[in-house]
Amino acid sequence: MKEKKILYIQPIKGNEAGDAELEAFLNEHKSSSTTHVDVVSFKQAPSHLEHHFYEALVAKDILKTVRQAEIDGYDAAVIGCFYDPFLDIAKEISQGMPVTAPAEASMHIAATIANSFSIIVGRNKWIPKMHENVVRYGYRDYLASFRPLGIGVLDFQADKERTERLMREEIKKAIEQDRAEAIILGCTMEFGFFRKLQEEFALPVIDCALASLKYAEHLADLREVCGWTISKIGGFDGPAKGELKSWGVEAYYGLEGMF
Amino acid sequence: MKEKKILYIQPIKGNEAGDAELEAFLNEHKSSSTTHVDVVSFKQAPSHLEHHFYEALVAKDILKTVRQAEIDGYDAAVIGCFYDPFLDIAKEISQGMPVTAPAEASMHIAATIANSFSIIVGRNKWIPKMHENVVRYGYRDYLASFRPLGIGVLDFQADKERTERLMREEIKKAIEQDRAEAIILGCTMEFGFFRKLQEEFALPVIDCALASLKYAEHLADLREVCGWTISKIGGFDGPAKGELKSWGVEAYYGLEGMF
Amino acid sequence: MKEKKILYIQPIKGNEAGDAELEAFLNEHKSSSTTHVDVVSFKQAPSHLEHHFYEALVAKDILKTVRQAEIDGYDAAVIGCFYDPFLDIAKEISQGMPVTAPAEASMHIAATIANSFSIIVGRNKWIPKMHENVVRYGYRDYLASFRPLGIGVLDFQADKERTERLMREEIKKAIEQDRAEAIILGCTMEFGFFRKLQEEFALPVIDCALASLKYAEHLADLREVCGWTISKIGGFDGPAKGELKSWGVEAYYGLEGMF
Amino acid sequence: MKEKKILYIQPIKGNEAGDAELEAFLNEHKSSSTTHVDVVSFKQAPSHLEHHFYEALVAKDILKTVRQAEIDGYDAAVIGCFYDPFLDIAKEISQGMPVTAPAEASMHIAATIANSFSIIVGRNKWIPKMHENVVRYGYRDYLASFRPLGIGVLDFQADKERTERLMREEIKKAIEQDRAEAIILGCTMEFGFFRKLQEEFALPVIDCALASLKYAEHLADLREVCGWTISKIGGFDGPAKGELKSWGVEAYYGLEGMF
Amino acid sequence: MKEKKILYIQPIKGNEAGDAELEAFLNEHKSSSTTHVDVVSFKQAPSHLEHHFYEALVAKDILKTVRQAEIDGYDAAVIGCFYDPFLDIAKEISQGMPVTAPAEASMHIAATIANSFSIIVGRNKWIPKMHENVVRYGYRDYLASFRPLGIGVLDFQADKERTERLMREEIKKAIEQDRAEAIILGCTMEFGFFRKLQEEFALPVIDCALASLKYAEHLADLREVCGWTISKIGGFDGPAKGELKSWGVEAYYGLEGMF
Amino acid sequence: MKEKKILYIQPIKGNEAGDAELEAFLNEHKSSSTTHVDVVSFKQAPSHLEHHFYEALVAKDILKTVRQAEIDGYDAAVIGCFYDPFLDIAKEISQGMPVTAPAEASMHIAATIANSFSIIVGRNKWIPKMHENVVRYGYRDYLASFRPLGIGVLDFQADKERTERLMREEIKKAIEQDRAEAIILGCTMEFGFFRKLQEEFALPVIDCALASLKYAEHLADLREVCGWTISKIGGFDGPAKGELKSWGVEAYYGLEGMF
Repeated sequence: MKEKKILYIQPIKGNEAGDAELEAFLNEHKSSSTTHVDVVSFKQAPSHLEHHFYEALVAKDILKTVRQAEIDGYDAAVIGCFYDPFLDIAKEISQGMPVTAPAEASMHIAATIANSFSIIVGRNKWIPKMHENVVRYGYRDYLASFRPLGIGVLDFQADKERTERLMREEIKKAIEQDRAEAIILGCTMEFGFFRKLQEEFALPVIDCALASLKYAEHLADLREVCGWTISKIGGFDGPAKGELKSWGVEAYYGLEGMF
Repeated sequence: MKEKKILYIQPIKGNEAGDAELEAFLNEHKSSSTTHVDVVSFKQAPSHLEHHFYEALVAKDILKTVRQAEIDGYDAAVIGCFYDPFLDIAKEISQGMPVTAPAEASMHIAATIANSFSIIVGRNKWIPKMHENVVRYGYRDYLASFRPLGIGVLDFQADKERTERLMREEIKKAIEQDRAEAIILGCTMEFGFFRKLQEEFALPVIDCALASLKYAEHLADLREVCGWTISKIGGFDGPAKGELKSWGVEAYYGLEGMF
Repeated sequence: MKEKKILYIQPIKGNEAGDAELEAFLNEHKSSSTTHVDVVSFKQAPSHLEHHFYEALVAKDILKTVRQAEIDGYDAAVIGCFYDPFLDIAKEISQGMPVTAPAEASMHIAATIANSFSIIVGRNKWIPKMHENVVRYGYRDYLASFRPLGIGVLDFQADKERTERLMREEIKKAIEQDRAEAIILGCTMEFGFFRKLQEEFALPVIDCALASLKYAEHLADLREVCGWTISKIGGFDGPAKGELKSWGVEAYYGLEGMF
Repeated sequence: MKEKKILYIQPIKGNEAGDAELEAFLNEHKSSSTTHVDVVSFKQAPSHLEHHFYEALVAKDILKTVRQAEIDGYDAAVIGCFYDPFLDIAKEISQGMPVTAPAEASMHIAATIANSFSIIVGRNKWIPKMHENVVRYGYRDYLASFRPLGIGVLDFQADKERTERLMREEIKKAIEQDRAEAIILGCTMEFGFFRKLQEEFALPVIDCALASLKYAEHLADLREVCGWTISKIGGFDGPAKGELKSWGVEAYYGLEGMF
Repeated sequence: MKEKKILYIQPIKGNEAGDAELEAFLNEHKSSSTTHVDVVSFKQAPSHLEHHFYEALVAKDILKTVRQAEIDGYDAAVIGCFYDPFLDIAKEISQGMPVTAPAEASMHIAATIANSFSIIVGRNKWIPKMHENVVRYGYRDYLASFRPLGIGVLDFQADKERTERLMREEIKKAIEQDRAEAIILGCTMEFGFFRKLQEEFALPVIDCALASLKYAEHLADLREVCGWTISKIGGFDGPAKGELKSWGVEAYYGLEGMF
Repeated sequence: MKEKKILYIQPIKGNEAGDAELEAFLNEHKSSSTTHVDVVSFKQAPSHLEHHFYEALVAKDILKTVRQAEIDGYDAAVIGCFYDPFLDIAKEISQGMPVTAPAEASMHIAATIANSFSIIVGRNKWIPKMHENVVRYGYRDYLASFRPLGIGVLDFQADKERTERLMREEIKKAIEQDRAEAIILGCTMEFGFFRKLQEEFALPVIDCALASLKYAEHLADLREVCGWTISKIGGFDGPAKGELKSWGVEAYYGLEGMF
């Protein structure tokens, strides 16, 4: 079984320490010594993506990074944000390499092991877009509730004790009031909290960053062994080779040789 | 009643002739001499947006143009592509100016005057994303069918006779086989064909570029008269003032003073 | 741009004062000096339509009034009750003149400017029928909640202070507990309260009587400029000319010359 | 077991011969000698209800007849048209007597004995309203198709041979192309054809007039034995006693003493 | 009208006293002296079916009993558990005899006489499977809520006073908080409580054991009079005659001569 | 990384040759030399499960085999039939070992790599139950069509050439008429055909037996690495320890020591 290289993209302005911490966390949970995980972030980018406009600003960088990963021989890529930003477009430009993202991965897993799930988010603001994704992926009937903590992306890791306390309160309500059978921690910056809460409440608590890594491993395996990967005959049919060049905008967008 | 200025954005690499032709068409159909329509396109951009990656490439330019329109005093803006690219994000960054797009506008109109509609598109490729929008906007039960012509965006105006013939064939099938009560021409480059077909088949044929202009006029009026415009307390809550600047990326994205 | 005449039908036993008050309110909000609004009510009719049987009693009068409006050259008609009584049948008998009603109009507007809305109603009794309309129009996923005030149609204007206070309480809950991004005041007799509450809560508060007027103006404009109006080839196909006469019931129903 | 009296309302301008023929047909199929079926029609009314406006014209007469049936001691009433016109309002004004109608009755039965059903109708025109009822009653996932014969209400019994031939053709397609497991004959004027076709195709063919009678017997029995009948605490809460009188319109509508 | 024999299967380890009590209760509510109800239970079986595994253990016995009932000339059979265990398979193996079960029966009835219903259950554990049935039968939009009492199947009849008190509390909440217009008592062991609560709250309270008997009578009548019974041309198409025998497993399963 | 043992249950009367052939096929596609796959079938059982009654006959044996697998230390089990028989109950009785089945596995995979899929089945008879599963798993909007070949389970491998030819015809129609972007071969006995067809049509063709193995590997990995496995706090809460024994039926069902 050959080594599998997976690129985990933090679609924000990162720093070495942050990337390394997440990389370490993910590497603890990869399924085999033959998986290799790299975490990358951007030099110039917003520091969080709570606002959808910030996603739009990094759209091109996310997608170029995905395409470059494929060119560089990665076996799968992850777009590491629970909005799953531009996941569909990443599937469109991939020429075969699987791409996934935290919401897609977490919900597939949760719906397989539970009859319902609640999603712990930061703010109310996030919910409409995330609800839209729940519906789109087919999981409306599995959704027990969204439960916001009332804090932002950058707060989760800043005061871990408070975060854990808030999570505990909302998980309790999700179980008792909403009848959730599983919990999804709906932001990649909620990484690292799942195991303790999972043991405490005796139900699956899904770390969405980790879920996306595991799902990426699965998809890479499906492609390698069975040849099952992104269908290119319909909505994921990608740009025609050379079209951007023929329009004279390949260089403008820094896409030389990519398509 | 004060003059209403509406900006119609062609989110592609345009040319003066093309913009002028569409501008003329739209100006023939504005509701009042007090409406003023400007059509803009981009200097550097793909020539069509059939592939979603091309949308991503122009994401930033579309959104900056929308925000600049608001700063410049426009009363409404239209993102002129039937995928409604980034319409939700445009509503997020607007600080009050209404924004709309062809699919949203056409479907609201069609669902008001018919029990069902068919959408005439170019290629199969477009359908999954457009179907997703139909569902998202709430119109799944109104959708009679998608009917692709088997041609591309750039073909519609290139051979108008062929386009009209193909449209005629598919509209006939939509009525007879799918029981469509209205037709939406599902690409802004299908502009200009609606009236003849509408008379021929005696049912509403909705030109989606025109629909978006009319809907923009309506939304601008609702704001002016009733104060009803984009809700900013939930999913459309926009970037915090100065946040991009504080992260040092305002200049990088060319957004000085915008947020 | 020619003058647009709109008939707003209060489908209840009215009085001159009441009609005049609403007419004045609507005239303040019409989009242009070229719109002319008439408000009519019935001489013999129930005083409110909370019970659906009361709607049935005025069915014929509503529909005759709509058809007569078309004959008299009105550009659009509004059936002024949030149950949207017989709106579909009005579209069936219209030979081209647009007809709309408060629920249809309010929801189209709310779904365009917000991700979700709550509807403030009088009594629980109203909700099943109104919920049915929400679903029928395609807005189930936009509905945050119904919030009843526990008062009747005739109470809204009788004690405005109390009404406003009750509205304030329920709007607060709709925002905080149901995550509503917009509010629809779900009874035409709730007219006149929207602006103050809208400013207070900083979200769109939609006055449904006013919304129906604005939507009627929009539909009249769409018909005039684009020829888009009610499709007559399917469910809105109207009575065959002369059929009622041939059955000898034209005079019995007082419909001479109407169909 | 006491005798059960059921009133079957033909909501059209009837004649003695037509009423008697249907009455004879229904009496052949009542479940017990203790059931007594009366068929009534109107002296002044449209001759068919294909257009929804015609329904509106008879709204008051239908509902008065239902209420009078209750006063006269009937155990249940049927509104004999597959549009189920004003069934909800009949449930509202009933003070306990069950009321049903052909579409409600047929679909409940079909969904119990088959995984899917097709509805054989007269014209395309009927389908949007009937589809709305299918959705409202909860049977969207059971609907295999609508299959129109291309003829009108008055044609079904006029040329029975042709009707049967057309039904045969469409039932065949419903089974083979739409995978229908049961057939509903979607107009009361399709009465009398079901048994032969049922035997021929070896699947349930539901005569909707008959279905409504059988369902009415069932509902009357449920009320008598278990006390289960229309809930009056929500949407079916009826007019307040004396309210119409207090408004001075009781006599105008000919409702003296009814409410 | 011939006598109708109905077999009510208690799919648990029963005892004479328990069967006799239920049989007496059902016999009080049959629609006519011509209905004959037998209650049977199993000698070897779990004492309740709260866990789905227990259903699986009695699967074969339930289905053999159903098939034997048909062979023995019963006119209908009831599988007496609110999970409706194996109802679809019972419809598959029946060669014409109707089969029903409490959830199917209760929901059809409730949806006919109310706009919404709440289901009073024992434990949270039961809800996912029952919710699945609600959706499958088409009644998602009718469901106001599940309201668990926090007790088990064997507790309902053990302490009737407590059961009634808990039911009263939850019915009150269902009406006030969930706007339920009808109540379904969602376990056959909740039999006997309905009438008092129904009178107290003045809304239909449906005893699901009784509902299944009444629905069985209705279905038997539909078959006898109209020939409408389970469609055998699709999903309910049963085992081919002799197939089990040809595989040599007929005796192993104790099915000699049954199929 | 420790060895993973997976039990694949053929829930039919098997034979050594058949089991060995499938075992060989699955072993070619396991993700790692550390996975160990065993295939078992039953000594006494129907030879296929086309009829749901046959599923019921093997219910107990399937579930005992699943529970025994867990006791024996398997890391995951597969119930190898595309009806996913008793998968929910298997999740209920598992005390932690993941269980999956072909439909669940195939649809999760297909929905991740395509916008829509068609399912190639044997007979019309299978479709209602399978459609129910599609809806239950959340994939109604992904389903392009069912395409039956008109042959039975035992025919697929008997005449492989014919099977492949029929598959080819239906896949072509699924792509062209139904716009399927992926194909699921909807019976485990369709194993072995996928790769050739996948290459021929250049879209994912999912072998459902293989998919269930791969999904089982994924689930076993999720459990091992992240502790994510079946939630036991709601619908999958299993039988209380010793309850069956206390009722004296443990031995009767041959479940000594299992629960």
